Amino acid sequence: MLAHRLIERKRDGARIEPGEWRALALAYAKGHVPDYQMAALLMACFLKGLDRSETAALTDAMLMSGDRLDLVHLGGPRIDKHSTGGVGDKVSLVLAPLVASLGITVPMMSGRSLGHTGGTLDKLESIPGFRTDLSLAEARAQIEKYGCALIGQTPEIAPADKKMYALRDATATVESIPLIAASIMSKKLAEDLTGLVLDMKRGSGAFLPELDRVLELADVMIKLGADHGCPCVALVTAMDRPLGRACGNSLEVEEAIAALHGEGPPDLMNVTYALGAEMLVLAGVADDTDSARRELEKSIATGRAAERFQQIIEAQGGNPAVLDDPAILPQASECEIYAAPRRGFVARVEPKTIGRGIVEMGGGRTRVEDKPDPSVGFVITARPGDWVEAGEPIATIFARDRSGIGSGRKALGNAVFIAEEAEPPLPLISHRVTLAGAEIYRDK
Amino acid sequence: MLAHRLIERKRDGARIEPGEWRALALAYAKGHVPDYQMAALLMACFLKGLDRSETAALTDAMLMSGDRLDLVHLGGPRIDKHSTGGVGDKVSLVLAPLVASLGITVPMMSGRSLGHTGGTLDKLESIPGFRTDLSLAEARAQIEKYGCALIGQTPEIAPADKKMYALRDATATVESIPLIAASIMSKKLAEDLTGLVLDMKRGSGAFLPELDRVLELADVMIKLGADHGCPCVALVTAMDRPLGRACGNSLEVEEAIAALHGEGPPDLMNVTYALGAEMLVLAGVADDTDSARRELEKSIATGRAAERFQQIIEAQGGNPAVLDDPAILPQASECEIYAAPRRGFVARVEPKTIGRGIVEMGGGRTRVEDKPDPSVGFVITARPGDWVEAGEPIATIFARDRSGIGSGRKALGNAVFIAEEAEPPLPLISHRVTLAGAEIYRDK
Repeated sequence: MLAHRLIERKRDGARIEPGEWRALALAYAKGHVPDYQMAALLMACFLKGLDRSETAALTDAMLMSGDRLDLVHLGGPRIDKHSTGGVGDKVSLVLAPLVASLGITVPMMSGRSLGHTGGTLDKLESIPGFRTDLSLAEARAQIEKYGCALIGQTPEIAPADKKMYALRDATATVESIPLIAASIMSKKLAEDLTGLVLDMKRGSGAFLPELDRVLELADVMIKLGADHGCPCVALVTAMDRPLGRACGNSLEVEEAIAALHGEGPPDLMNVTYALGAEMLVLAGVADDTDSARRELEKSIATGRAAERFQQIIEAQGGNPAVLDDPAILPQASECEIYAAPRRGFVARVEPKTIGRGIVEMGGGRTRVEDKPDPSVGFVITARPGDWVEAGEPIATIFARDRSGIGSGRKALGNAVFIAEEAEPPLPLISHRVTLAGAEIYRDK
Repeated sequence: MLAHRLIERKRDGARIEPGEWRALALAYAKGHVPDYQMAALLMACFLKGLDRSETAALTDAMLMSGDRLDLVHLGGPRIDKHSTGGVGDKVSLVLAPLVASLGITVPMMSGRSLGHTGGTLDKLESIPGFRTDLSLAEARAQIEKYGCALIGQTPEIAPADKKMYALRDATATVESIPLIAASIMSKKLAEDLTGLVLDMKRGSGAFLPELDRVLELADVMIKLGADHGCPCVALVTAMDRPLGRACGNSLEVEEAIAALHGEGPPDLMNVTYALGAEMLVLAGVADDTDSARRELEKSIATGRAAERFQQIIEAQGGNPAVLDDPAILPQASECEIYAAPRRGFVARVEPKTIGRGIVEMGGGRTRVEDKPDPSVGFVITARPGDWVEAGEPIATIFARDRSGIGSGRKALGNAVFIAEEAEPPLPLISHRVTLAGAEIYRDK
């Protein structure tokens, strides 16, 4: 009866009170509210919206439906980064050990790939032996020791969100800003953070392509953080092309290791440093992002960041030798150079087409149950704006077999546009958003 | 995947094509589309609406999900009446045998009570032995013989509608005009009608109280009928007070029998004759409603209508002696006179309060599984606008026990308003609606 009344209320555009959201989320997590009632309510929420206090209450309700990481006793700053996801986005793999190496606690819970975007857990699991399914107790112990654990959402964390997310996926109610914000923040707040940095992707390969929707989501998440005592800063970054050169699980781990050794591609390094600098400032260990960036660069240069990644890999059961010998990672049986079919400017490298190509080649998921092949993917060296000659190598395809090479070749053919002229791509980092609002990002 | 795409489309306010509605309804009826996806779609339909061709396609799809009565071979006119439901509405019990007695086929599928409104099936089942669960074959045989069967929606008729209606009930998506219209019309069209008369209730006791919504629903249903080759006429009738005097299953059957014997209360007779006259004109057996009405009155006066009811009761396993001895019907153990608590005009007799009082006394349903006690209810002799003296009997309460009498007394106390002045009640029949539009009903 509660559910029916709340559906009716939201359907008619009225508010649902915090206590009601709490009762509903709990009842849903326990199976006392059937999926079909929740589905009707989610569609009503999608179409009628939630105000700030409702979004906070829903976040709260999902958070309260489960456990927290319980890290308050650690005392120090606990900062995480969340990305809205993209193609080639291996930032977490570099950033988490890097920031942890500077004495900050980084309790990072990540997700899996679905559709065209990759997932940090899948990338990590390409490291032989690496376990992402630590229990909460194991994660806590590791965080105390190394300041960082790289894990998935455990069954104890926000079970109402987990169930609701699966339902939203099946009922076309995913792309709702308050529902997205509440889902992300309920998990992040369960990490007991003192601050959170958001990497908000924009552009054709992003979950929300349009800047105004991205800024709206950032605003809602930042306010949710503020309402829960967790200050947030968001950077809006480009996802009109893949980030870095490597796309595909093993290949991205390899690029992340290169980055920790100081040899990452410039765009990956710039995004990593920019996000890391915000994390250090939020943590209170740096006065400004310029000095924070210098600290981050130093940790890479001295090898401390790479060493921390090695410790984390070892602690989570992975083979730590991967830091020195990335050939330990699963290798594709076939690889082939892809050459520019004509001369001109690289006008676009379409991330969705690349991401879908990887799925096609067996490296992603079309359903939750799928098991991706970590070895397949692309290394794309051509960047939008580059001038290329016909026949010049611009990418390498990594596949399981000849048919995979064919799929990869087709994906690149559809993704890479070469033209007489090229519009400039989106700025790598375009906006910085805080509780005070959005401002143009000043590149340093 | 189909369901997901259609939810998305309707969510964004776009159309769903006829073929898609058909595929969806079939898949849903067969259990290939889960309830939670249908619930999300229904909420999107509720909030975004369906246009005329979508409503027709949904009606079609639900109709095609099951069998039809298959009466085309009978050749003659096949006319039914549908009422949107109210308190004290026993019109079907009088009208079906009455019209059938004039040689018209009346294949009447009715519903059960839920909430404050009564259901024709429950009323009929208060006749000892009466079976409303005839198979389609049994119903067909009886219709061939007597021109009429009074049955429930068989499992073969519009199974997609049956399943969808239960889901709408649980997900607060009932009160949507296109969904209501498609649900009603999918069942009525399965009766293979050549015409349909709609009794559209308005006023505080109606499903849709406001006139504009009633006219909108009538318009959608009439157009649906036209799109399916089934001409419809609607009369808008008053449900700001109960229809007739008796409210409660046995009591209403008794009043219907009295009506067939020519002794019905004037409002019940007027509504029955008005609807019946439209049926005869639609059937082509009368030139106008005036001459049709005279035919109807004659059938009552000569006893032919009562005789036809007796034959139908006998054919459906009921005790036909009830026509001569209504005391055969289940009788309440306790009955008590209710007197006017003060002098004045009867300002209102609130149908919802009366209906809920009957449920409270055990005579209705709060859940589908409930088994109503047919004996309980009220006979209310005071009509809105009547002058009454304090202490004057204005109703009789029929109950199972003293506590039921108490509940009944309380319900009447809340339902009957006596005041110094009384606004005139709604006109008994206010509008007549056809494909050409709505016009004020001219009382004859």
